[in-house]
Amino acid sequence: MAFNPEQFTNIIDEAINSIVYPSTAPSLFEPVKYTLASGGKRLRPTLTLAVYEALSRRSPEEAVNQALAIELYHNFTLLHDDVMDRAELRRGRPTVHCKWNDNVAILSGDAMLTLASQYLCRNAGEHLAALSECFNRTAMEVYEGQQLDMEFERRDDVTVAEYMEMIRLKTSVLLAGACRLGAILAGASEEVCNAIADYGEALGLAFQLRDDWLDTFGDPAVFGKEIGGDIVNRKKTWLLITGLNEAPDQLPSIIAEDLEDDELISQVRHVYLLLHLDRRCNEIAEKYSAKAIECLSKIDMDVDARNFFQNLARQASSRTH
Amino acid sequence: MAFNPEQFTNIIDEAINSIVYPSTAPSLFEPVKYTLASGGKRLRPTLTLAVYEALSRRSPEEAVNQALAIELYHNFTLLHDDVMDRAELRRGRPTVHCKWNDNVAILSGDAMLTLASQYLCRNAGEHLAALSECFNRTAMEVYEGQQLDMEFERRDDVTVAEYMEMIRLKTSVLLAGACRLGAILAGASEEVCNAIADYGEALGLAFQLRDDWLDTFGDPAVFGKEIGGDIVNRKKTWLLITGLNEAPDQLPSIIAEDLEDDELISQVRHVYLLLHLDRRCNEIAEKYSAKAIECLSKIDMDVDARNFFQNLARQASSRTH
Repeated sequence: MAFNPEQFTNIIDEAINSIVYPSTAPSLFEPVKYTLASGGKRLRPTLTLAVYEALSRRSPEEAVNQALAIELYHNFTLLHDDVMDRAELRRGRPTVHCKWNDNVAILSGDAMLTLASQYLCRNAGEHLAALSECFNRTAMEVYEGQQLDMEFERRDDVTVAEYMEMIRLKTSVLLAGACRLGAILAGASEEVCNAIADYGEALGLAFQLRDDWLDTFGDPAVFGKEIGGDIVNRKKTWLLITGLNEAPDQLPSIIAEDLEDDELISQVRHVYLLLHLDRRCNEIAEKYSAKAIECLSKIDMDVDARNFFQNLARQASSRTH
Repeated sequence: MAFNPEQFTNIIDEAINSIVYPSTAPSLFEPVKYTLASGGKRLRPTLTLAVYEALSRRSPEEAVNQALAIELYHNFTLLHDDVMDRAELRRGRPTVHCKWNDNVAILSGDAMLTLASQYLCRNAGEHLAALSECFNRTAMEVYEGQQLDMEFERRDDVTVAEYMEMIRLKTSVLLAGACRLGAILAGASEEVCNAIADYGEALGLAFQLRDDWLDTFGDPAVFGKEIGGDIVNRKKTWLLITGLNEAPDQLPSIIAEDLEDDELISQVRHVYLLLHLDRRCNEIAEKYSAKAIECLSKIDMDVDARNFFQNLARQASSRTH
C-alpha cells in the first residue's frame, strides 16, 4: 500500500462523524460535537495514523480509535483551558463557556476526557496496557504544563529554560504521545517507539516557537488572527522572556506603562527587532525541526512516509498560519 | 483467611498515603491531597476490597489499586461538582474552589481523574480491558447524572421516575461500578459480576433516599450538618417532587414565597408530614435495602462476608448520619 497522507483527514473526519454518544442526557454532548466540528489542524490524530501506517505498513484505519482518543483529549484540554484563561474565541467561534456557561464547559470537558479513554481502549488488543500507560502519563504531563503556564503569569523571574520545559509539557508531549500510540499499535520496538516520540516532541517545540513568532511577527492576513495578542497579554513567551533578559532597561518599563494596544505592540516589537529576536526565535524553531528530522534516521520507513514526516517538521518552523 | 471488614479502612488510608505524585508542578496536587485527606466514608473503595475478598477469598490488598481508582474518581467528581454547585463547604472544610480558586479546582480535578485511570491500570493484568470498560462506562453515567441534576434545577415538571433515574446515574452506578471492579478482579462469572453490581446499585438508591430523608428529618446533632438545606435550595428530591404532586394547592405557593429559612423549612416539613412522606421515603429506601440483600442470594460467599454486605445494605436505609 502506498503511503498516502491525503487520506488521513478523511479517516479522522469520518471517525468524528461516526461517534455514538450516550443518549440519556444528550445536551451533555452538544459542546463536544461543537468543539470537534470547529476543525483545527487535526495534527495529533494525523500523527497517530501516519506513524501507524509508516511503521506497520498496514491500513491507518486500524489506528483510528487511538487517533480519535488523542483528538478528543486535545479538544478536552482546549475546552477546560479556555475556561481557565477566560478565552472568548477559539478557531473564530465563541468558546464553549461563552456559548453555554462554565458549568457546561467543565462537565462536557470531563465527559470528553472519559470518551477519549473509551476510544483509546477500543480494539487495543494486546497493546492496551502500553497504550493506557502512554496516554495517562502524557495527559498528566499536559496538566503539569498548564499548571506551570498559569503559575508563570504571576511570576517575574521565569527563565528561558523554564519556559521551554513548560511548552514541552503543555504542547510537545501530546505530539510525542500521539506518535508513540501509533508506534505501540504497530508493534514497534522500544527503541523505535522512543525515536518517534522524540520526533513528536521536537516537532511540538518547533511548532510552539513558530506559534510565538507568528503571534508577534506574522502577517495578519495570512495568520488569520490579530497580531500582538501575546504582547498585549504580557504573555511570557520565548520572545518576552529573552527580551526582558537582554533589554532590562527598556522592556520592563514599556510593558509596565498603560499604553494603547497598538502603541505597546509597536514599541515591544521595536525592542525585539533591535535584539534580532525575530530571527533568533525562528532559528531555534528550525533547530528543533532539524532535530525532529534527525530522530527519523533511527527508523526504517519507506521514502514516502519519510518525506511526509520530514515535510511536517520543516513546516512546523516555516508555516505562515 | 477470615473476612475482616476492619482492615479495609487501613488498607485504603495506607494506599492514599502512599500515592507518589509527579514532581514537576507539585502545587497541581495539593488540592488532590487536601480532598483525599478530608476523609469521607470510603464506602466505594471498601466495596471494591470487600467484593474482591468475598469472591476470590484472597487478600483484599490485591485490589487496592482499583479501590483507590474508585475513591480518586469519586473525589474528582466532588471537586468539580462543588465548582458547578458553588458549594462552599465539603465535609466541614472549605471546598477546593473556595480555598484556592475555580481554575485550581478544574485543573486539579482533571489531574485526579487521570490519576484514577492510572491506578485502575496498575497490576490489572488480564483484567485490564474489562476493568477499563466498566470504569469508563460508569464514569460517563455519573456525568449524565450530574447533567440531569443540573437540568432538573431549571425544570418544574420533574417526575419521581426521572428523579430515581437521575440518582441512579449520579450516585448508584458508582457503587455498582465499585462492586463490579472487585468482582472482575476476582475473576467472577458474568452472572456474579451482574449480581454484585445490582447489589451496589440498590445499595446506592437506598443510601441516597436516606440522604434525602436525613437532610429534612435527621437529627442535626447526630447528622453533623444543618437540617433543611434541600428545602431552602428547593432541591428536587423525592420528598419535594412527591409533595408537589400530592399537595398541589399548598406546596408550590409555600416554596414560591420569600420566607425566612426556618419558617420555610417548618412549613414544608409540615406538609411532608401530613402526606406521611417521612415514613414513605424511608419505606422506599428500605425496599432498596431489601432488594440489595436479595441480590446477594445469587452469590456464593462465606457467612462473614454475607453478613458484612447485608449489614451495609441495612445501614444504608437506617443510618442517622
